[in-house]
Amino acid sequence: MQDAPDLHVFPAAYLKNFAAEVFMHFGIAEADAWQAADVLSRSDLRGIDSHGVARLHTYVDMLELRRINPKPNIKIIREKSSVATVDGDNGLGLVVGPKANEIAMEKAEGHGSGWVSVCNSNHFGIAGYYPLKALERDLIGWAMTNSTKLVAPLWGAERMLGTNPIAIAFPGHKEPPIVIDMATSAVAYGKIEIALRQRCAVPQGWVVDRYGRDTTDPQEMIDGGAQLPLGSERDLGGHKGYALAAMVDILCCVLSGANWGPFAPPFALRQEIPERSVGKGIGHFFGAMQIDGFIDKEDFKKQIDEWVQVFRNAKPAPGTNGPLIPGDPEREAEAVRGKEGIPLLTPVVEDLRDISRKTGIPFAAK
Amino acid sequence: MQDAPDLHVFPAAYLKNFAAEVFMHFGIAEADAWQAADVLSRSDLRGIDSHGVARLHTYVDMLELRRINPKPNIKIIREKSSVATVDGDNGLGLVVGPKANEIAMEKAEGHGSGWVSVCNSNHFGIAGYYPLKALERDLIGWAMTNSTKLVAPLWGAERMLGTNPIAIAFPGHKEPPIVIDMATSAVAYGKIEIALRQRCAVPQGWVVDRYGRDTTDPQEMIDGGAQLPLGSERDLGGHKGYALAAMVDILCCVLSGANWGPFAPPFALRQEIPERSVGKGIGHFFGAMQIDGFIDKEDFKKQIDEWVQVFRNAKPAPGTNGPLIPGDPEREAEAVRGKEGIPLLTPVVEDLRDISRKTGIPFAAK
Repeated sequence: MQDAPDLHVFPAAYLKNFAAEVFMHFGIAEADAWQAADVLSRSDLRGIDSHGVARLHTYVDMLELRRINPKPNIKIIREKSSVATVDGDNGLGLVVGPKANEIAMEKAEGHGSGWVSVCNSNHFGIAGYYPLKALERDLIGWAMTNSTKLVAPLWGAERMLGTNPIAIAFPGHKEPPIVIDMATSAVAYGKIEIALRQRCAVPQGWVVDRYGRDTTDPQEMIDGGAQLPLGSERDLGGHKGYALAAMVDILCCVLSGANWGPFAPPFALRQEIPERSVGKGIGHFFGAMQIDGFIDKEDFKKQIDEWVQVFRNAKPAPGTNGPLIPGDPEREAEAVRGKEGIPLLTPVVEDLRDISRKTGIPFAAK
Repeated sequence: MQDAPDLHVFPAAYLKNFAAEVFMHFGIAEADAWQAADVLSRSDLRGIDSHGVARLHTYVDMLELRRINPKPNIKIIREKSSVATVDGDNGLGLVVGPKANEIAMEKAEGHGSGWVSVCNSNHFGIAGYYPLKALERDLIGWAMTNSTKLVAPLWGAERMLGTNPIAIAFPGHKEPPIVIDMATSAVAYGKIEIALRQRCAVPQGWVVDRYGRDTTDPQEMIDGGAQLPLGSERDLGGHKGYALAAMVDILCCVLSGANWGPFAPPFALRQEIPERSVGKGIGHFFGAMQIDGFIDKEDFKKQIDEWVQVFRNAKPAPGTNGPLIPGDPEREAEAVRGKEGIPLLTPVVEDLRDISRKTGIPFAAK
């Protein structure tokens, strides 16, 4: 946020309420609207600004054009005791995702684990939201999703994969949980956008140009280039980030019957529509594991506490305060923003005012 | 292998037979000895020289000193229908791993998925071996393991995690399967050893010295330094490789009751013994998913074929032949080495001759 002195701070509850009313305005049932708003709100609280109400206008665009079904009939189309495939009926990913995650958690409570692949969905917010729900039930939670193509496979010169995140969380006893939520690209797309706005170069290893050549100019990525997978280049393990993105793509899409790889439909109106469809919508993959199926739950949580303490106390690298625990930065943001509110950039506030004008739902009148 | 002109080629079956007889010599039951030899042989065939018979001497050292139990009572100590924890009774990982993987596959065939966390085990060979077994039963297979500490967490200046690999495989119809098998470190430890032998520098991003400072001198890593996680540094996603290694560590060890993080016991005699034990042996984690639980199996396999073809046909980056499919290099090695034999370096042959002298089992008399 250091690129924008112009911040406007709103209580999280105010933004969540606005988002829920907007979703209801477009015909989404009340409970679903609140669920969707909760996913966006949690993202804002956890400091992942790109995935919170900053995206509400895009969801509105899609709902206005009826590209997203406001009243989906979300259903299990195939299952065995510990696995299922869910068809999201082209509903909001923010509604389909939580329902499918719920199915995974119920299966885990009955059978030790539950794994749900989802087709015919749309963008589901932050992947980390879903394992956080699992933590509330003392489960280990997993979530993955594909997304619109942005990333080149190693040795490729075109966008073929989304930033395909992996999230997983483990509960602690007295220590906070370990919450992993990571894109399989070298960097989040939002960081490239920030560099563009600031007109500065990006580090070597983030992006390539339209010919697949290394570049540090973010504009060259925008102009038909691509992001690089985690590991960036062959010597540093770029094939591994590509393999992880492929894994996410297959678990979310090939396993469910959704559009995989370069055929993922666009999230926003201005994005290119793929030449082919190979399935239905985008795909997600959720998992939940019951700790008691493996080991005494309290013993596990106490060992997680020790794990956290041992890693926090590792010898620090020069110029650092030592290792963080995955989830630390987001949890700290949540503590601050829960009290102090959510800072929004002016263009985001303008977007929300535009939604307000369209829908008649009041928002922060000047 | 380009660092050693001195290669000795042996038929894979000859080496496998030798390994099996050696294991039997140390009191391992015949079926288990053949199973263990099969894991080593598959590694040699697939071109992962560091994990094949090159490691036999280390297993022998541990068996001689009774640090590994040749006749383990491997048993399920806790389970629900789709999950279990297995205690390997300090057996060879090459025997414990296949048994636990078998339990995961049986659960998958009954309940759609099976997930097995394992404690009290030892090094289990290449992670990729286990999903390859799942492919034989048309299952999606997963395997992970922790290992002796070598890798620093991001912003740490000491070894805290193993190279903790993740493997997963998906079957194709006419195309070969997609087989992912990747360490969560920036690079395999074997590549650092090769640079040491060749007295050459390693790329920036592979290792740090004992103070946690970047270095390109492999000797500085050996002298108390550490490997870096996938992503290497903060800007390129080093926190993500660290998070993946943490995930593997927790699923394999905290969930099973094995020694996690820096407390993993050493694989070889000359390695430092950790100051504390927080569990039993090292840990693994296996998963298997029945495709039919999610989607028609033949439809899935045909989509995998299309996935493979689409990614093979991606526009190549300059100076490359385009993207590989995960598992291509290993499968190609297997085709060549299955016919032409396994090339071993002179020191490996010397190790095998030493085992031959100790055990009386003949090996390649000069």
